[in-house]
Amino acid sequence: MHCVFVFDTYNRQTINRYMELFMTLDVVGIGNAIVDVLARTEDAFLAEHNLTKGSMALTSAEDAEKLYAAMGPAVEVSGGSAANTIAGVAALGGTAGFMGKVADDQLGEVFSHDIRSLGVEYTTTPTSDGTPTARSFILVTPDAERTMNTFLGACVELGPDDVNEEMIKNAKVLYLEGYLWDPEEAKKAFLKAMDIANNSDTKVALTLSDSFCVDRFKHEFIELVENQVDILFANEAEITELYGEKNFDKAAQMAAEHLHLVILTRSEKGAVIISDGNRIDIPAFDTSVEDTTGAGDLYAAGFLYGFTQGYSHEDCGKIAALCASEIISHVGARPETDLNALVKEKLGL
Amino acid sequence: MHCVFVFDTYNRQTINRYMELFMTLDVVGIGNAIVDVLARTEDAFLAEHNLTKGSMALTSAEDAEKLYAAMGPAVEVSGGSAANTIAGVAALGGTAGFMGKVADDQLGEVFSHDIRSLGVEYTTTPTSDGTPTARSFILVTPDAERTMNTFLGACVELGPDDVNEEMIKNAKVLYLEGYLWDPEEAKKAFLKAMDIANNSDTKVALTLSDSFCVDRFKHEFIELVENQVDILFANEAEITELYGEKNFDKAAQMAAEHLHLVILTRSEKGAVIISDGNRIDIPAFDTSVEDTTGAGDLYAAGFLYGFTQGYSHEDCGKIAALCASEIISHVGARPETDLNALVKEKLGL
Repeated sequence: MHCVFVFDTYNRQTINRYMELFMTLDVVGIGNAIVDVLARTEDAFLAEHNLTKGSMALTSAEDAEKLYAAMGPAVEVSGGSAANTIAGVAALGGTAGFMGKVADDQLGEVFSHDIRSLGVEYTTTPTSDGTPTARSFILVTPDAERTMNTFLGACVELGPDDVNEEMIKNAKVLYLEGYLWDPEEAKKAFLKAMDIANNSDTKVALTLSDSFCVDRFKHEFIELVENQVDILFANEAEITELYGEKNFDKAAQMAAEHLHLVILTRSEKGAVIISDGNRIDIPAFDTSVEDTTGAGDLYAAGFLYGFTQGYSHEDCGKIAALCASEIISHVGARPETDLNALVKEKLGL
Repeated sequence: MHCVFVFDTYNRQTINRYMELFMTLDVVGIGNAIVDVLARTEDAFLAEHNLTKGSMALTSAEDAEKLYAAMGPAVEVSGGSAANTIAGVAALGGTAGFMGKVADDQLGEVFSHDIRSLGVEYTTTPTSDGTPTARSFILVTPDAERTMNTFLGACVELGPDDVNEEMIKNAKVLYLEGYLWDPEEAKKAFLKAMDIANNSDTKVALTLSDSFCVDRFKHEFIELVENQVDILFANEAEITELYGEKNFDKAAQMAAEHLHLVILTRSEKGAVIISDGNRIDIPAFDTSVEDTTGAGDLYAAGFLYGFTQGYSHEDCGKIAALCASEIISHVGARPETDLNALVKEKLGL
């Protein structure tokens, strides 16, 4: 009876508009669904295990086990690059969805709980074939730099069938991580999702993820950037690697020629936003750095939250820098502070 | 050939002494083997779920699942009261062993990895009957107080057969947590371990764990304290609960009558150490408090490390206070700093 009453009171158009608003998500992300295993270490440990500081390397289950046995006590926190970004968008007060594959195991439950508890729509079916949930062994050196070794586990089973078409069509932004090009089927899911977005009003945002990842897929990434991506996130190492152009400003210009919006982060040097020929430089927030894990992910979260709320690019950049400063002030790539309150307090936005 | 040469060069007595040194552990702990699931929350959440702030409550698998579904994103860190203490002793540079039951699941691997990676001897066979590794859902309110809901899982399967007699005989101190009286079989393991210690040169140290736990087993704990325990750790709420004596000083005196060494912690008021009629008051370290989880555990770690290295009770108290200050400065009950270096730097010990 109550429903009928509501239906009678409001006209159909109002209800449709309400439903549309309800269904529209600010950002939908697709990425590797990973639990981070974070431990502090010394530089000597990286050298001993032939690990390249600051990079993300893929590792087999066997090698992951060896590394885990050798490393010190750790902390487990939900991670995954795009997942961190989506968690950040939700923590800021945006509406968000995520697609990524975990297993039906304890770490899969951890990942699912953490992202859903932020209000993120996450419905990808977990795999139950025995492949465990992905883990990234993250070693944090005294200089706060993180070095990642990722065992992809269940992530390799994300495929085109896991792409939720309705969710993407109804999102303002589809956010994709370059890391998805590592698992073969995930790449197909990536391409399918991008096609759906390109055929609707959904903007496509891409992060290049990691300079070694760019090196692996350079030509494919350039083609994507030139043809299907609207918004590009990259750091200095990634953008210079993409264009094989050591001069940052030149590389930035090359990206800007093909894209509506380019956001380039430069750690403590802040970030550069280029849109339709206009360049804005946004300084980084001054903060004590504990662990850089997730800095780029939360930068993207802050920017996309601002972008989908209709803020100016400059304000988006400020929110982004603030979110990045929060994440590097503690261990782990998921926010420990109420980001929404932080933005209000520090920026008045 | 090499072995024979070594054997010939050193006489048997030297080798035996070396073996003995090698075998003697400073502290062996027995406790519930738990992974902590830590999340920040508001006071309203505690009220809504009828949780008593600052306490540890036991929960069923079903209720644990409901609480987990309701709580926000969390961080997973190895925990368990005695296990935290043992991890602390090892981090300080002491030699240590631990007995406690996990399952052969992912959280069991996390617990085992973390404690072993500190050099702790941990050989308890994991259960494989499907009961999962124990979890404690720890909610940290803005005042940094922690409220714990523990699902004991595999811990209830620790029994007398898991007690490693040789390890206890060869330890300087056996450290037991009062929480072990909750699972029925663990209580038997506790009593067996204490008997072994009482019949050798191993001192028995007990922590009362929690005032609700004391309330559950008051008479049994008093009997233990009067007859089988050498060193008692308790906080203000626990010692006053044990003797039903609201006046802290009187309760402290009552404990001291039966024990060689009593260590009573009083949060920011510091701690009181009473030994053979002499009372020493040790102030707390001034620090910013993020999360009080593990404060008592790391206090005991610092004290027992100092005690087994032969330091004065006053120095033991200082090391203890320093370790407690480290643990409350961040989320989680396992140290994030090199405790050994910290003690050298701050106390010159």
